[in-house]
Amino acid sequence: MEKVGSFRFVAEPYLTDFRGRVTLPMIGNYLIHAASGHAEERGFGFSAMSERHTAWVLSRLAIEMNEYPAAFTKIRVYTWIDGVERFFTSRCFELADEEGKTFGFARSIWAAIDGTTRRPTALDREALGGYVSERPCPIERPGKVRPAESRDEAGVAYTVKYSDLDINGHINSVKYIERLLDLFDIDRFRTGEIARMEVAYLSEGKPGMPLIFHKAESAPGKYDLAVLSGGNAICRAAVAWR
Amino acid sequence: MEKVGSFRFVAEPYLTDFRGRVTLPMIGNYLIHAASGHAEERGFGFSAMSERHTAWVLSRLAIEMNEYPAAFTKIRVYTWIDGVERFFTSRCFELADEEGKTFGFARSIWAAIDGTTRRPTALDREALGGYVSERPCPIERPGKVRPAESRDEAGVAYTVKYSDLDINGHINSVKYIERLLDLFDIDRFRTGEIARMEVAYLSEGKPGMPLIFHKAESAPGKYDLAVLSGGNAICRAAVAWR
Repeated sequence: MEKVGSFRFVAEPYLTDFRGRVTLPMIGNYLIHAASGHAEERGFGFSAMSERHTAWVLSRLAIEMNEYPAAFTKIRVYTWIDGVERFFTSRCFELADEEGKTFGFARSIWAAIDGTTRRPTALDREALGGYVSERPCPIERPGKVRPAESRDEAGVAYTVKYSDLDINGHINSVKYIERLLDLFDIDRFRTGEIARMEVAYLSEGKPGMPLIFHKAESAPGKYDLAVLSGGNAICRAAVAWR
Repeated sequence: MEKVGSFRFVAEPYLTDFRGRVTLPMIGNYLIHAASGHAEERGFGFSAMSERHTAWVLSRLAIEMNEYPAAFTKIRVYTWIDGVERFFTSRCFELADEEGKTFGFARSIWAAIDGTTRRPTALDREALGGYVSERPCPIERPGKVRPAESRDEAGVAYTVKYSDLDINGHINSVKYIERLLDLFDIDRFRTGEIARMEVAYLSEGKPGMPLIFHKAESAPGKYDLAVLSGGNAICRAAVAWR
C-alpha cells in the first residue's frame, strides 16, 4: 500500500460560501474524510481502532490556503503521515486541482484515546512508522496559541445545540471551526480571506457546558480565539487574514 | 434517459449526530445533491438554467423518515419529477438502503427564478413534462404552516452569520433546517425523533436582516416554527416528533 493516500472531491455549489468558494469547515470535512479513508485502507482506521477499544481524536489542526477552490472544482486531497510519537501521530495534507495546482496544505496531530478512560494510549509505532512519508508539507506546524480571554473579557456566551454534537456526543471538531469563523463579521469575508487557521482541541466539549467564545486581535489581521467553559479553555484557535 | 435518477451516499460517521444517525440537514444536502444531479443529467440543471439567466429555487420541502440511517450505511436516493405547473415543478425522493429498505420519502416544490428580477419565470412544460414519473411517493404534500409568532411572541433574535450564506448570498436552505432544529433542546433528541419536517421558503433571507425565530406547539409533539424579519415571515416550518 502506498504511503500517500489520494481522495477526490467536487466543490458542490450548494455548499460553497457567498463568494462561491469552498469554506474552511468544508475543507475540514474533506481532511477528516481523507484521514479516515487513508487510515482505514492501511488497517489502522475506525474499525481496527474500535476492536482495540480505542479511537482517533484530533488534537491540533492547521490549514493554510493560497486559494479557495471555486464551485464545481474537482479537488484532490493527498494525505500522509509524517511522524509517529509515543502518543501522537502527525498527518499532513495537500489540496490540489486535477492538474496538480496546489490550493493549500494542512497539518494535523492525532491521539489514540481509550474508549473508557478517554486518556491517550500508546501507539503501535512500528506498524504506523512503516507508513511515514517524507513528502514535503511546507507550512508551519500547529503551535501555541495565546489566550484570547485576557484581552476580550466579556466574550460571547453560547449554549451547545443539537447540531454541534458528533457521534461521541461531543462538539464536532468542524463545528468549532464554523462557530469560531462566525465570530467575524460577514463583511470581513467580503474584503479579505483567511490565509491560515489553526485550532487546538484541548478537551472535549459536552452538551450542558456553558461556553464563552473570545476573540482578540494580536497583530493587524491576526486573531487569537478561545472557547472557555468554567474558566478553562477547551479550544483555542488562531486566524490570519490576508 | 430514465425518468428516475439514483444517487449513492455513505453516512459518514464524522457527520452523524450524537445518536450516530444521519441528521435532517445532511439528508437535505443529499436531496439537493440528487435534485441537482438529476436535473443536470437531463439538460435542465444549473448550467442550462444559467445560460437562460435563470436558477432553480427551492420553495417547499417535506421530509418523512421512518428510520434515520446509521453511520457507515450505504444510502441510495431516488428522485423524480411528479408534476410540472406553469411556475413550479414538484419533485419526489425516496431514501433506501442497498437492499431496497425504505428509510423515508421527501417532496419538494421548485420555482425557476429570473437572475435579475428574482421573480418566477414560466417553465418549459413540454420539455420537463417528458420526465414526469408516476412512481409513488406515499407522503403528504407540503401544506400550509400556521404562524408560530402569534403563540410565541418573544421569539429568539438571531443575526445572520457567514456560515449561513450560500453562493447567492442568501441563507442556505439547509442552514434554515439546522437553525430551526436547534430551537429544540438536545434532550428532545434523546427521547424522540422527528417523524416529519416541512419547510416553506417564503422569501430570501439576506445578511443584515434582523431575524426572530419562533416556535409554538400546535398539538402534542407537533410544532410550528417561523423565521421573521421586520414582521414578515421569510420561512415557516412544521415538525412532528414521535
